[in-house]
Amino acid sequence: MRAQFAFCVAAMLVATVAPSAAPSEMPPQDWRDVNPNNLVLIDTRYGQVAVEVAPEFAPKHVERLRALIRAHFYDGLSFYRVIDGFVAQGGIGEGTAATKDHPKQAASLKRWPPLKAEFDRPIGRDLVFTPLGNADLFAPAVGHVNGFPVGRDGKDGREWIIHCPGTFAFARDNAADTASTEFYIVIGEMPRRLDRNLTAFGRVIDGMQYLQKLERGDPKVENGVIQDTRKRDPIIRMRLAADIPGKDRPKYQVMRTDSESFAKEKTLRKNPAPEFYVRTPPPVLDICNMPVPVRPAER
Amino acid sequence: MRAQFAFCVAAMLVATVAPSAAPSEMPPQDWRDVNPNNLVLIDTRYGQVAVEVAPEFAPKHVERLRALIRAHFYDGLSFYRVIDGFVAQGGIGEGTAATKDHPKQAASLKRWPPLKAEFDRPIGRDLVFTPLGNADLFAPAVGHVNGFPVGRDGKDGREWIIHCPGTFAFARDNAADTASTEFYIVIGEMPRRLDRNLTAFGRVIDGMQYLQKLERGDPKVENGVIQDTRKRDPIIRMRLAADIPGKDRPKYQVMRTDSESFAKEKTLRKNPAPEFYVRTPPPVLDICNMPVPVRPAER
Repeated sequence: MRAQFAFCVAAMLVATVAPSAAPSEMPPQDWRDVNPNNLVLIDTRYGQVAVEVAPEFAPKHVERLRALIRAHFYDGLSFYRVIDGFVAQGGIGEGTAATKDHPKQAASLKRWPPLKAEFDRPIGRDLVFTPLGNADLFAPAVGHVNGFPVGRDGKDGREWIIHCPGTFAFARDNAADTASTEFYIVIGEMPRRLDRNLTAFGRVIDGMQYLQKLERGDPKVENGVIQDTRKRDPIIRMRLAADIPGKDRPKYQVMRTDSESFAKEKTLRKNPAPEFYVRTPPPVLDICNMPVPVRPAER
Repeated sequence: MRAQFAFCVAAMLVATVAPSAAPSEMPPQDWRDVNPNNLVLIDTRYGQVAVEVAPEFAPKHVERLRALIRAHFYDGLSFYRVIDGFVAQGGIGEGTAATKDHPKQAASLKRWPPLKAEFDRPIGRDLVFTPLGNADLFAPAVGHVNGFPVGRDGKDGREWIIHCPGTFAFARDNAADTASTEFYIVIGEMPRRLDRNLTAFGRVIDGMQYLQKLERGDPKVENGVIQDTRKRDPIIRMRLAADIPGKDRPKYQVMRTDSESFAKEKTLRKNPAPEFYVRTPPPVLDICNMPVPVRPAER
């Protein structure tokens, strides 16, 4: 039992996070470098969170996010509305709960007018879509584009980034074209009803566990806004990797989701350890439970 | 925009955690008291986690868990293998990673022989199964039984508790009938491939956010076992609510999943705020993303 248990533990793990093969067995061409212009670093008191954004899906939102970061807009703001199993919402906006606590940044809000929604984009030949390989409960088709979980509707010819744990998006008002500065990151179950209703344009590629440590609000009190401002975990700073010089710049590689290596990952995930699974699992994947491997790259 | 934003926030929230109606609008008969013999309290350094167990699904595992708790077996052990997006595993077992660090409890392991698996149970008339109302990717049918997310297969006449975030189960070795003392709680995406492969017999009804704060292991190192024993978060103590006297005993009520109130919850969750959802979400639910309301009861 001793020898076997170690395997059992391994089996449960391989099924979840670790790549199927040793990195050396995965051809270098099956990985791509994350563009430092698309790599956002959020420093929290628990550690650094890395988010890759996708300008192909939301060019105006990416442009806005970069500008906000470079204006140091977010530095010193907080995750003021954090709901377990749902989202961590950060920043300030016109008339939202945390705005009055940051008068200096609040005074700059007029610089950031509402953006036109970028909930989805036309399906185009500029991006490779790799189907997941099975049906989905919410979208006509699902798969990956550049590592992002993507839904597609062939009928109206649109595609969009799906709300999975780790998805990065801008919050908005009731009207569609009202996002301006506040962001949220999905920290829990996949709220798929938000798909195509908000502009989702990034995903956490490292540091998800630090977001999970964020102080939570009580959802029954002011919709999860943390009432005691001292308990709100700060956004210590947000930076674009491109603005960090030399070897201080964090670098990541993401497995290409149109590669042979990723196809193997998907196959393996369905039944990662036949020795352990006394019943063969259904040969199915959920788009939000098929992690795309990420690794640090040499600086 | 100010007035509307508050609603937007509310919309996102109602969609997730808060009950659709004020408690006063939900008939008392739509709630049931959690049996204190089935209520397990796990004290962590971040707060108390409450787990309801289901003896109807795994009588021998529930009996074992109660006995282990009453023998103070878990008190002072740790969550020694915690993988973000997957599970928090606690306790010690024959030959597992943390056993050597707890020689006293390790010496008692022989008292707890391996259990026969209780991966599923025959579908019976003793329990009311309320279908979710739509298809599932993994099981022929899904729904709720006494608040637990349950899968069913009419062909072989079996039903089982599904691995959703918050699901409580016993770990095991490669062979089916090898669970004895170690438990795990799902803290991330729903690892549905584990369904019917392990004995899942409870769910977290309060304190999920404290489990999310647990120190994580590196999945690439010894399968997520936290190497520095000082960093492992302790299981301060585990108790059965039935053993806590008088008004110190925590009490909870769970919404009856065969009630009119819960049917309303499901309808509302699909489209919680038409004012906010500029695109009507697909009228679909995922069994792991349909929370069953829980509330504290008067002590």
